[in-house]
Amino acid sequence: MTLFPLYLAICAVPATAGLLFKPGAWYRDLDKPAWTPPDRLFPVIWAVLYVLMSLAASRVAAQPDNAFALGLWSLQIAISTLWSAVFFGLHRIRTGAFIIAVLWAAVLATTLAFLAHDSIAGLMLGPYLAWGTFALALNISVMRRNPQAEMA
Amino acid sequence: MTLFPLYLAICAVPATAGLLFKPGAWYRDLDKPAWTPPDRLFPVIWAVLYVLMSLAASRVAAQPDNAFALGLWSLQIAISTLWSAVFFGLHRIRTGAFIIAVLWAAVLATTLAFLAHDSIAGLMLGPYLAWGTFALALNISVMRRNPQAEMA
Repeated sequence: MTLFPLYLAICAVPATAGLLFKPGAWYRDLDKPAWTPPDRLFPVIWAVLYVLMSLAASRVAAQPDNAFALGLWSLQIAISTLWSAVFFGLHRIRTGAFIIAVLWAAVLATTLAFLAHDSIAGLMLGPYLAWGTFALALNISVMRRNPQAEMA
Repeated sequence: MTLFPLYLAICAVPATAGLLFKPGAWYRDLDKPAWTPPDRLFPVIWAVLYVLMSLAASRVAAQPDNAFALGLWSLQIAISTLWSAVFFGLHRIRTGAFIIAVLWAAVLATTLAFLAHDSIAGLMLGPYLAWGTFALALNISVMRRNPQAEMA
């Protein structure tokens, strides 16, 4: 039995965090780089990433000795839940950058661990790693451009 | 190799949510039942629960065909991260009660799945299930006593 529905249900938790902690007036008024994607693109990107990461996890779940790899997957999904709340809820840009850096490292570790089990599962996390790199760069850029916005 | 340190590292994510989204003036001024524990007791209880749930997960990680049980564990840890942010960050008492009810169901499912693998691991989640029941009752009581406090 595939565990894809279970992993997708877990992804509903960070998705709920994203829905509850929305970009509002505070985010709109921040000085953002020209390469900031439009707001409406974020849920689309995340939906694709959630499906891919759930498919990847369900492939690894079918392999033996997978607890370390799946544990890293759990770590990244929990960190992802925390980020939205801290950035959009607390308006803590610096703490957000730190959390997204830890998230990036957790996604990299998950990708490497998945690759060791199943090449396709590892490759399925490639877009997530690419997006994480982009999101980290965006968060750092927003942090540098808005030294006074912290906690505003 | 035991995965206890990995699971404890994952528990650091909801713990960080608890540290960042603190009970402040809003929570202090809520009408709370007489059986509300003092604030300082919560981190102690959670520290014990984190150690127990990490030990339980590392026991199940050593068993075969554990991906479903460990997936449920991932689900509850992500929901736990969300709760602190929603209750203490957004001051949404009703949404908090809903999230904690889903958390309770996830902890129950994890406990049952763990019991099927390893009796000791299942028993180690007993205190978490008991605390979840108490926390759900507390959240519902606070919701009923403060009909106007939502989003305040």
